[in-house]
Amino acid sequence: MTIDQERLDFLSNDAVQGFTGYVGFESVKLEPGRFISRIYLKQHHLQQDGFVHAGVIATIADHTAGYAAYTLVPPGRRILTIEYKINMLRPGKGKYIECRAQVLKPGKMILVVESEVYSVNADEEYLTAKALLTMASVPEAKLTTS
Amino acid sequence: MTIDQERLDFLSNDAVQGFTGYVGFESVKLEPGRFISRIYLKQHHLQQDGFVHAGVIATIADHTAGYAAYTLVPPGRRILTIEYKINMLRPGKGKYIECRAQVLKPGKMILVVESEVYSVNADEEYLTAKALLTMASVPEAKLTTS
Amino acid sequence: MTIDQERLDFLSNDAVQGFTGYVGFESVKLEPGRFISRIYLKQHHLQQDGFVHAGVIATIADHTAGYAAYTLVPPGRRILTIEYKINMLRPGKGKYIECRAQVLKPGKMILVVESEVYSVNADEEYLTAKALLTMASVPEAKLTTS
Amino acid sequence: MTIDQERLDFLSNDAVQGFTGYVGFESVKLEPGRFISRIYLKQHHLQQDGFVHAGVIATIADHTAGYAAYTLVPPGRRILTIEYKINMLRPGKGKYIECRAQVLKPGKMILVVESEVYSVNADEEYLTAKALLTMASVPEAKLTTS
Repeated sequence: MTIDQERLDFLSNDAVQGFTGYVGFESVKLEPGRFISRIYLKQHHLQQDGFVHAGVIATIADHTAGYAAYTLVPPGRRILTIEYKINMLRPGKGKYIECRAQVLKPGKMILVVESEVYSVNADEEYLTAKALLTMASVPEAKLTTS
Repeated sequence: MTIDQERLDFLSNDAVQGFTGYVGFESVKLEPGRFISRIYLKQHHLQQDGFVHAGVIATIADHTAGYAAYTLVPPGRRILTIEYKINMLRPGKGKYIECRAQVLKPGKMILVVESEVYSVNADEEYLTAKALLTMASVPEAKLTTS
Repeated sequence: MTIDQERLDFLSNDAVQGFTGYVGFESVKLEPGRFISRIYLKQHHLQQDGFVHAGVIATIADHTAGYAAYTLVPPGRRILTIEYKINMLRPGKGKYIECRAQVLKPGKMILVVESEVYSVNADEEYLTAKALLTMASVPEAKLTTS
Repeated sequence: MTIDQERLDFLSNDAVQGFTGYVGFESVKLEPGRFISRIYLKQHHLQQDGFVHAGVIATIADHTAGYAAYTLVPPGRRILTIEYKINMLRPGKGKYIECRAQVLKPGKMILVVESEVYSVNADEEYLTAKALLTMASVPEAKLTTS
């Protein structure tokens, strides 16, 4: 399957809405099977000790992986997170966190994706979290909130 | 280790601040090794398909587990999430989501916790997600954001 | 879907072959959505410190979950492990380890299962490991080793 | 911490005993923070469909990660698996499976390791499984099987 730039642009915008818009998620670069995103850090992203809350880190890891997967399925299919596991390696802090996700294993129904979340400050960065995620590709018609 | 009501009340309030306050996290019931919490659902908790965003579900699963663990360590120690794995079982929707966390294995340095997240609407509920989490208990003095 | 006793007996025997036969896996009780199994411990199940090797514990957790899932899919479909996460809670030792698996979420294509592995000795037992597993149900025709 | 060749050789041999010896685990190359190992495939490594049993894949992923971690802790400390998550990406088959593990995050008490398991046959190979593992470094004196 190939994907054109128009579809990539659509997905890149589609990734920022609802909860991810609320959290400050920004698309940086979307390519087939790969997606880079950022959240610029503000006070409300922190937890009781002053570091980025694990929930923010998990959200960016999961969401970035999901849209990396979206680039490898046809329009008319939706990506749902089946499950993931995330290791918090070092405290998240700095100017922003950046997530780099790549699909490890594409598939018609199951896609496995890997996300790395970095803490970035000026010219230094370090790996803050790593996640391994399993995504399902499901027909749009199967999804309904009513 | 025993824990008194004053400390439980302190932790129950402490759980709502920074990112979790922003997300609308509410403490419901905190006991030694167990914690129940809720998030009342609003538009900004949803994702592109109208369901609760996985990031919200992961945040409540992780944070509730963390404070369940807090009840089993002495004051002066902090709980950090080492890692977790979460399965999204059914779409999250309804009036609120409720998380019930319990410590499976206490420990001086490592605590393993289980969280179940339910979608609740009027008088029905169903299991939306299940997580298995590993927490570290670390001396407060070891944590610094500067 | 209902399952008859003949099919349950078939699956219960089918569970012991190849690697699981080699490892000493024994079926104890198979019901729709639930499976109990055992491995009687011998020297070759241990690791460098004298405890049951994590590989043995993972094998029983995974395999028992897989056959619990088998009871909920029609004949002609096979169960494959997509992924799992396991927490090793306490050292494995004793006369045997027993695994109790139950399906948390059935599904046509994806089934989520939970396994608990106990160390058992005479009249005492304790929880040694807990796993959360994602299984795929796939048509037999799709599987081929050639 | 530096590690000398004598200690590396000791660990490389130490990795093959008990269950891993029984399963046919072989050390290939051990360096600080990295370990490569193999299992040459025989009939007893397979499951009901003729592929390598997930238990064998999990065992090599976990054990190889554990000894990669061993190279980064002082003698007198032991490595225990706290937990791991593994995704089975493609069926395991071929002449042997090879595991390549590397430590993502060293630490005095907690080490996070990543393992990739490849199916290898003549001159081709493919990624069969990927795991993310959390290990504890504990003083030898704390371990006792009695």
